[in-house]
Amino acid sequence: MHTDKFTIKQSVLTNSAGEKMYALAAEMFPICRSITGNGVRQSLDIIKKHLPIDINEVPTGRKVFDWEVPKEWNIKNAYIKNSQGEEIISFKNSNLHVLNYSVPVHKHVSLDELRPHLFFLQDQPDWIPYRTSYYKEDWGFCISYNQFKTLTEDVYEVFIDSTLEPGHLTYGEYYLRGAVEDEVLISAHICHPSLANDNLSGISVAVFLAKQLEKMPRRYSYRFLFIPGTIGAITWLAVNEKNAAKIKHGLVLSLLGDAGNFTYKKSRRDTAEIDRIVSAVLMASDSKNRVIDFIPYGYDERQYCSPGFNMAVGCLSRSTYGQYIQYHTSADNLDFIRPEFLEGSLNMTVKIIETLEANQKFLNLNPMCEPQLGKRGLYNLRGGNNDSKEFQMALLWVLNLSDGTHSLLDIHVRSKMNFDIVKEAANSLLEAKLVREIS
Amino acid sequence: MHTDKFTIKQSVLTNSAGEKMYALAAEMFPICRSITGNGVRQSLDIIKKHLPIDINEVPTGRKVFDWEVPKEWNIKNAYIKNSQGEEIISFKNSNLHVLNYSVPVHKHVSLDELRPHLFFLQDQPDWIPYRTSYYKEDWGFCISYNQFKTLTEDVYEVFIDSTLEPGHLTYGEYYLRGAVEDEVLISAHICHPSLANDNLSGISVAVFLAKQLEKMPRRYSYRFLFIPGTIGAITWLAVNEKNAAKIKHGLVLSLLGDAGNFTYKKSRRDTAEIDRIVSAVLMASDSKNRVIDFIPYGYDERQYCSPGFNMAVGCLSRSTYGQYIQYHTSADNLDFIRPEFLEGSLNMTVKIIETLEANQKFLNLNPMCEPQLGKRGLYNLRGGNNDSKEFQMALLWVLNLSDGTHSLLDIHVRSKMNFDIVKEAANSLLEAKLVREIS
Amino acid sequence: MHTDKFTIKQSVLTNSAGEKMYALAAEMFPICRSITGNGVRQSLDIIKKHLPIDINEVPTGRKVFDWEVPKEWNIKNAYIKNSQGEEIISFKNSNLHVLNYSVPVHKHVSLDELRPHLFFLQDQPDWIPYRTSYYKEDWGFCISYNQFKTLTEDVYEVFIDSTLEPGHLTYGEYYLRGAVEDEVLISAHICHPSLANDNLSGISVAVFLAKQLEKMPRRYSYRFLFIPGTIGAITWLAVNEKNAAKIKHGLVLSLLGDAGNFTYKKSRRDTAEIDRIVSAVLMASDSKNRVIDFIPYGYDERQYCSPGFNMAVGCLSRSTYGQYIQYHTSADNLDFIRPEFLEGSLNMTVKIIETLEANQKFLNLNPMCEPQLGKRGLYNLRGGNNDSKEFQMALLWVLNLSDGTHSLLDIHVRSKMNFDIVKEAANSLLEAKLVREIS
Repeated sequence: MHTDKFTIKQSVLTNSAGEKMYALAAEMFPICRSITGNGVRQSLDIIKKHLPIDINEVPTGRKVFDWEVPKEWNIKNAYIKNSQGEEIISFKNSNLHVLNYSVPVHKHVSLDELRPHLFFLQDQPDWIPYRTSYYKEDWGFCISYNQFKTLTEDVYEVFIDSTLEPGHLTYGEYYLRGAVEDEVLISAHICHPSLANDNLSGISVAVFLAKQLEKMPRRYSYRFLFIPGTIGAITWLAVNEKNAAKIKHGLVLSLLGDAGNFTYKKSRRDTAEIDRIVSAVLMASDSKNRVIDFIPYGYDERQYCSPGFNMAVGCLSRSTYGQYIQYHTSADNLDFIRPEFLEGSLNMTVKIIETLEANQKFLNLNPMCEPQLGKRGLYNLRGGNNDSKEFQMALLWVLNLSDGTHSLLDIHVRSKMNFDIVKEAANSLLEAKLVREIS
Repeated sequence: MHTDKFTIKQSVLTNSAGEKMYALAAEMFPICRSITGNGVRQSLDIIKKHLPIDINEVPTGRKVFDWEVPKEWNIKNAYIKNSQGEEIISFKNSNLHVLNYSVPVHKHVSLDELRPHLFFLQDQPDWIPYRTSYYKEDWGFCISYNQFKTLTEDVYEVFIDSTLEPGHLTYGEYYLRGAVEDEVLISAHICHPSLANDNLSGISVAVFLAKQLEKMPRRYSYRFLFIPGTIGAITWLAVNEKNAAKIKHGLVLSLLGDAGNFTYKKSRRDTAEIDRIVSAVLMASDSKNRVIDFIPYGYDERQYCSPGFNMAVGCLSRSTYGQYIQYHTSADNLDFIRPEFLEGSLNMTVKIIETLEANQKFLNLNPMCEPQLGKRGLYNLRGGNNDSKEFQMALLWVLNLSDGTHSLLDIHVRSKMNFDIVKEAANSLLEAKLVREIS
Repeated sequence: MHTDKFTIKQSVLTNSAGEKMYALAAEMFPICRSITGNGVRQSLDIIKKHLPIDINEVPTGRKVFDWEVPKEWNIKNAYIKNSQGEEIISFKNSNLHVLNYSVPVHKHVSLDELRPHLFFLQDQPDWIPYRTSYYKEDWGFCISYNQFKTLTEDVYEVFIDSTLEPGHLTYGEYYLRGAVEDEVLISAHICHPSLANDNLSGISVAVFLAKQLEKMPRRYSYRFLFIPGTIGAITWLAVNEKNAAKIKHGLVLSLLGDAGNFTYKKSRRDTAEIDRIVSAVLMASDSKNRVIDFIPYGYDERQYCSPGFNMAVGCLSRSTYGQYIQYHTSADNLDFIRPEFLEGSLNMTVKIIETLEANQKFLNLNPMCEPQLGKRGLYNLRGGNNDSKEFQMALLWVLNLSDGTHSLLDIHVRSKMNFDIVKEAANSLLEAKLVREIS
């Protein structure tokens, strides 16, 4: 197994969240996933060991908006043998070798006949590219350019032992009830084969975020989706069309295990609360983090942000498509992601959720002039260090802007003060009964 | 005739649009136009050889809002002779020599008496300035500073053989019906004597734009005005006050024959569709083009954008007033404008009109998630060159934003994609019945 | 008296407004003011010699929103004597020596017992800091660091001959009726002892602004408040809660006697008319002037801009808190402020008020096309210097934008023309009956 080198790393894992997430990714890495089939089922079974997800199956042919659920794809083996019977390309070495969703094939072909079915990267001669052919029946092999160069005129046996038959599209869902029915959606795609950053990192962070949220008090309810990209999101939206209106905020998680700084791609709404929250958290964390505009391309925010839904769902990643050359190649492997980056990503998502949860509006109950903070022990009469001066200012800002229209995020933005100190000030004023929450 | 040198150039003109426009300007150049009189009539007669315009006459004394149509001015001859009877300043050499709209005069004067009636440019000693006296009865001569310096103490015979009598104000109008009654106004002033860039270039471009539009399918109806500046626009608006509401967009054309980059002066509305269209077209064409804010000074946009009308009419020119020293002098002649610049201006106005015509809104008929482009042949499954990738993005943008509120211009602005590819994508989606036009 | 050195300067004062304001500040300087007590009364009596203000008294214990009017504080004498009976710190030398609002004390203490009651500035060893203890009963002395360093182990007699008893809070108010009931509030605090820039400069400028306004035609009514900071503003607002709605614009005046450029701190509304007016006037005057955002800290704008009032009240100062090291020390004395700076401040406030008074909306009575300015003598037919060209443009701008929605300030901003020339143009058009005022 080509994953042997990773098992060594797994053995030294201790119990940090980053290492647990890495181990989960490593466990799922060898599985050959696609948009349908047993690869997704096996992956969801592994997730279920961590999180009590529901596993849903939608039958092939089911009409989902403009699409329909495709056939189920499963694969047992695949290879190319030369005329000496040597297996020169083998699915067992890497499931990327097979054009994903390939129809079955078994025949003998000349090099000329084979060549149109071969995909490789001339610029990265050691890497195997990842290619799919979901919506056009085709077969093919993805190989390194160095492998390609060794091919001579010969008669090759090509064998792809796959099935494409009526079955199901499978996805996982996990719902975590909060104080209100308004939902936050967390969505990760689960349709890529042995690619670590692109799909496994997002899945792992989503699983461990869910585990953290289970332990936290929650204003919002949370819905986690582990779904095949595009057709999975479309299927879920079609099946749950009425529920979609409950989703008030959301994040697509992907590409969260590499060393890059964070990138947040805003929702189509551009200034939704989730957009403003994530921007504030990212910018407060590191000025090298980036916030980019919505474009109707990328992960499943494409579907969530289609005009008929227009959900407030953005996409959080570290590096993005086009920013790293390992994208959609065999180099997006378990060496490319690191426990510490997964852990940083988890912490960032937790911080985002905490900020979203905390972003309430308060009403100043003494709006005529300032209340007398001194008699409530909230005023440092003389002297005081810088921390207490900053806290004084935060109290004054929260009092001044808590007129029913400003959330703590608004106050944070206008005051240019750290969100956490604004939140702390609001809590002190709440305790002192100088403000009350607005529902 | 001082225009001899230009006739040589005319003889070598071939049949390009630029050369035809230049020839039209050259034909009109020698005529002594003013705000009323036969100069305008002769010019309109020349235009009528190209375009079936209506020629309208409004009688002197007709009340037009706060103004009234002035007397008709005509001139046969004018000169200054010295005591030796030599014609030292002669209308035959340049019609600019006479203060435009000058009352008749014939008398003998000393140099001291003559001086207050002489206009010259010390900074440009070879050039004759262009001066008018429409609303104060006066007579005068415009001469070069070099001519002025040769004047000695003498008795001068001044003779201006003009008439200022009840008559008419004359203007030309051309209406081109489109699919809807909503109109686009194209307005050019026709009151300046031998000035090439300032009035003849705008007239020529307007004439040839009309000829192009005649051949194009048109959503909008088009109204072309060839009118004396200020009083002509006021007269037209007074006579057609009710029609003005049909005008949804408009351009004043002027100063379009010189080598300068384009300048668009926005309408008073600042963000009218025409303002956004022209800005987009100019910026996409050359970053040295300029878009400037509305000011209530300039050409007839002053009247169209008066607060009672507040029409969405901007002004397109190349160089603008104050940007070139030849402005309102004898140096604004047929050497100053060039066929290639007139042709560039025509092309720019056509591009603007095409963009305005194309700037429709569409409605995505599958707004829930993306439609499946592949089954309609609109999706390049694998590979594909950059052009096709760009077209894919344009399809996605048009689908994503065609929610009933975004025009193609809005999509162009938000996507930062070329307007033409956005338009092409919309057309493909229209053919595929994935969007429909919103009227 | 430590103010002897200033009396020399007073003797050379002539009659400029700046010198009169300086003399007023100098007369009030020696008085020991606090938030209540005779110091405020004496100061208001001095103001009353210039302006017929009403002096109001609100009794101790009166509930004012979340606060109550505190006890009245008065002080006769205070000192620290060493064991030799030498008065080493004496209230007679500077009223800053006593912790303002100190409870009475008379006892003998060791240096260790004395130390927690001493306040000094290590960084400015010659200066006495200004400290208060309004809302926590305490006694103390403020001394220079050099004085502090001379203190040895000894038995010290500390004596503060103050009283803290039920009495009144005292403030001055002056109302100047205008054509309409809408009010402009001018507020200055009057609670600081011998501090020249911080309180006396604002009081002096407010007094002389009132005297100027008495002589000017007034559209607005004006209300001047001379009040103790914080509790005085809160008391006034509580007593006059219903009147507050009449206040349409307002300025807190403070720190107006030093050499710094002007600073305007905007109201909480951020874009209120007063904010836009003061910004325009300050920017037109000197690009080194500053306009800063509202923060809920500072002078009494904190109360006027509390969310329940949200009045359009900003704060005008020269240097601001934190910008100058003399703030709240004995170095903020009569040497720190200068007649010429007070006069500049007065002129700036007058300019602001003139601009506010002039900022009306007009309605163009000939909104269809331009009116004919020439027949009304408003058009410079030929030539004309730059001044007249600028005036022409101002006429056109006022005509073009006087559609009922634009004030002269709006026209000034959009035209980028000087406010005064815009105002002059509006006046000319008013005289010519081309526009009328909109009430």
